[in-house]
Amino acid sequence: MKGKARRYDAFVFFEGSEKKVEMVVSGVNLRGLGKAYWEDVVRQCRAEMISSISNDHVDAYLLSESSLFVWGDRMVMITCGATVLMQSILKLVEDLGRERMDSLIFQRKNEYDQSKQKSSFLEDVRLLREMVPGKAHRFGRLDGHHHFIFNLDRPYRPAFKDMTSELLMYHVEGEAAQTLCHGGREKGEEIRALLGLEKREGLMVDDHFFKPCGYSANAIEGPRYITVHVTPQEDYSYVSYETSLDVEGGYRGLLGGLVRSLRPDSFDLVTFDADLKEGFEDGYFKWDHVKENLSCGYKTEFFHYVSVCYDPRAPQAL
Amino acid sequence: MKGKARRYDAFVFFEGSEKKVEMVVSGVNLRGLGKAYWEDVVRQCRAEMISSISNDHVDAYLLSESSLFVWGDRMVMITCGATVLMQSILKLVEDLGRERMDSLIFQRKNEYDQSKQKSSFLEDVRLLREMVPGKAHRFGRLDGHHHFIFNLDRPYRPAFKDMTSELLMYHVEGEAAQTLCHGGREKGEEIRALLGLEKREGLMVDDHFFKPCGYSANAIEGPRYITVHVTPQEDYSYVSYETSLDVEGGYRGLLGGLVRSLRPDSFDLVTFDADLKEGFEDGYFKWDHVKENLSCGYKTEFFHYVSVCYDPRAPQAL
Repeated sequence: MKGKARRYDAFVFFEGSEKKVEMVVSGVNLRGLGKAYWEDVVRQCRAEMISSISNDHVDAYLLSESSLFVWGDRMVMITCGATVLMQSILKLVEDLGRERMDSLIFQRKNEYDQSKQKSSFLEDVRLLREMVPGKAHRFGRLDGHHHFIFNLDRPYRPAFKDMTSELLMYHVEGEAAQTLCHGGREKGEEIRALLGLEKREGLMVDDHFFKPCGYSANAIEGPRYITVHVTPQEDYSYVSYETSLDVEGGYRGLLGGLVRSLRPDSFDLVTFDADLKEGFEDGYFKWDHVKENLSCGYKTEFFHYVSVCYDPRAPQAL
Repeated sequence: MKGKARRYDAFVFFEGSEKKVEMVVSGVNLRGLGKAYWEDVVRQCRAEMISSISNDHVDAYLLSESSLFVWGDRMVMITCGATVLMQSILKLVEDLGRERMDSLIFQRKNEYDQSKQKSSFLEDVRLLREMVPGKAHRFGRLDGHHHFIFNLDRPYRPAFKDMTSELLMYHVEGEAAQTLCHGGREKGEEIRALLGLEKREGLMVDDHFFKPCGYSANAIEGPRYITVHVTPQEDYSYVSYETSLDVEGGYRGLLGGLVRSLRPDSFDLVTFDADLKEGFEDGYFKWDHVKENLSCGYKTEFFHYVSVCYDPRAPQAL
């Protein structure tokens, strides 16, 4: 998100690719731990809280690097840049006690530039496995876009319609992409409309335009959420759109529409118990598809779609 | 090439992706420097000589990590694994004198696992730019297969038909790929036939089967060469085929045939003054195409082709 240069530069490069943790716990009220506790969790991975919204179900925090959602019995935290999310996870497992963990899923996208990260996925998982047993997989090819997923290896049955859909778009193009990436605060209404975050009853939205560039939004509707993060830098632009809303309730159409509007050069779909694969094919070819029923009960799928290149481009000067 | 495990493993992982340097010099006879000198050059980057062949034009050395070719007025060195080719290049520039460099092109493929490399391309180039002026470009997207290319920024006119074609194939599949990757010495004749290295007048071939796996071959025909390197590990199999032979003289067909035989999941074509883009389209989509006339005179093109994924796969356990 945040970053000073639109051109790739070793010194101001900003990594948009995210790490994510989702925890379900019992015997403790996570919201009851209070904002100061969660501020401390966020600081562990070297991010900061920017703002928050709340409803009867969930507290949603915008972070300097992505987002945190806290319900009574679960939490989702997503961070980008050079944050070390594993440090926040280790603190939570230690503070809450591993016996309270019903489900724990740690996901890490391969980075644009892994050499600027403070740890690798395997190093992260080595630390976590000292505290809890788990399985780890790579979804996607080593030389293509891929996601590492660790899950607590403990019997668990996800709640009915506990679905998550992640749409991750690389190298967005065209007018809508320009507005989203460089429109700024004065285009706020247009940007929120593009993202399905228009004002409507029951939906609360909290968004932030970073200086000099970048955009993040959290939205909550009952217990469900949408979170959007935009890294606008031209050479590695990246838009992530994640939601736990029911894709049967119109979100499939919204996500397909986003791909048509933002015309990414390629994109990933990652789903947990959400059947979202159709409606994305126009102008794209499916280059990868991986699926697995995780031992913690979620049916997980990864798709990678690429567009076809018609015209030659110039190289990137370094 | 060399490697102990067929499955991805952090400890025995072998990086097949290559670094390459091509230098053209004047005022010094490179072959005349003798084998002991070139052994020293090779040791600088932490590789070793295995064997060699020679004809009237060129000495071709097989290395523990790829290949070295030495003519009177030029040299090409290709290394893989965790070698630091830049150390060999710096020694050559220092020993020979930068004023003797007519052309110097340093190319580096993005790695499967960059975190296991001892330097990045930008770090390599920072050292080189302390000795000679140069331009650097990235051919290909940061989040896809890409090649970094540095060239000495000095007027130069490549010789007539001084062409190079690189065909780099990722995740090879099927019967021919099995033979190439795991056939071993007893399938040597079949492997050489597949690669267009059958016995014929004027062609000298030197090949090596690594233990426990991996295959390399050098071939020379007059002043021109073919060099092939195979990393057979299933999760990141990689076959590189490079030649300075005239693609109009039948090599276009050979390279297209290799793609059809080895059925890579995706492949790159990189060409310097060689017009090689046609004949590869069957079953593949062109996902990237970058072209540039380098300031040292070579017309350089990069293509990346991907196959379409029809069936879902299982994830890779880690």
